[in-house]
Amino acid sequence: MSQRTPDHEIDPQFTSRWSPRAFTGEPIDEATLLRFLEAARWAPSGFNAQPWRFVWGRAGTPAWGPIFETLSAYNQLWAQRASALVVVLSQHRWVPPGKTELQDNTTHAFDAGAAWGHLALQASLSGWHTHGMGGFDHAQARSNLGIPDTFTTHIVIAIGRVGDKSVLPDSLQARETPSQRLPLAALASEGRFSITD
Amino acid sequence: MSQRTPDHEIDPQFTSRWSPRAFTGEPIDEATLLRFLEAARWAPSGFNAQPWRFVWGRAGTPAWGPIFETLSAYNQLWAQRASALVVVLSQHRWVPPGKTELQDNTTHAFDAGAAWGHLALQASLSGWHTHGMGGFDHAQARSNLGIPDTFTTHIVIAIGRVGDKSVLPDSLQARETPSQRLPLAALASEGRFSITD
Repeated sequence: MSQRTPDHEIDPQFTSRWSPRAFTGEPIDEATLLRFLEAARWAPSGFNAQPWRFVWGRAGTPAWGPIFETLSAYNQLWAQRASALVVVLSQHRWVPPGKTELQDNTTHAFDAGAAWGHLALQASLSGWHTHGMGGFDHAQARSNLGIPDTFTTHIVIAIGRVGDKSVLPDSLQARETPSQRLPLAALASEGRFSITD
Repeated sequence: MSQRTPDHEIDPQFTSRWSPRAFTGEPIDEATLLRFLEAARWAPSGFNAQPWRFVWGRAGTPAWGPIFETLSAYNQLWAQRASALVVVLSQHRWVPPGKTELQDNTTHAFDAGAAWGHLALQASLSGWHTHGMGGFDHAQARSNLGIPDTFTTHIVIAIGRVGDKSVLPDSLQARETPSQRLPLAALASEGRFSITD
């Protein structure tokens, strides 16, 4: 497994969290899954609007199929061994406190991402792993799950315990290692944008 | 200070993190600030694109003014006592690995939000606090900081040490307490969207 070495000292949770594809397929109980969603609940959001929403299904339950079938064939190949799938949504139109008309929430996607960051960390701290997938049929998810027009679909999260990579096709085995990152100097600058595009 | 009681057991970092406005104005050294950005660096993103970018300025340095002056008058009122400001951007147009043409990155805002979630937690774990602000002049920030068209401006983060709320105007003193959250049942459902809008 490739090493992750931070450029600056940080809590180890951030480099310990990664996104595997080789899961064991073991069951996850509802209480455990709800702890991960609970961490998401406490994320910060503009005007504390909390635009994030989650629809979840555990493997072996009726809630699994309507989510699983929206995944791309590529993602189904490995996500079939996840223990749970969670669809992340956000409310992009809402009625702010003290108002009476629907307005755009301009930070809905950004805020939902913060909630996902929390969720992933809590899962990792609990000995589970997450893998976010953009590759799913958004229209089918909307239809299958009854998602209203005022909500945006973002990702489907596969949650599971890490298994042996031998369960994966050869092409995916080669990628089954924590990914690296751009150097911090390529991401941040002082006072003015001076970052390589 | 109001209590935060999670519905399900989670790591205390999630409820300990909150967004104060009463800061002490004390200096922050660059090494400390870079640790917060380092945590953001390890967030997950679609195709590991890492679309997040940061432009930062510390109080009392030339980098502060061009960011501070973009804040709304309301935010300037309290953010003047922050120790640093960080503008969060994301690259919404990019050339994916193996491609030659610019494409939309559909998860840029969501992914940048995950990085912000990481940043806020590392700051809180280090004894600092963050407060994200959507209330700033996005066009002015783009001009002041030289932000290219392929990047979106999201929030400005005020970072500081919590001070006594007596430094705030009366109206803000009344709000200077950790905010509560909707019940988890209003945010998550199994198998199908069945959440109060």
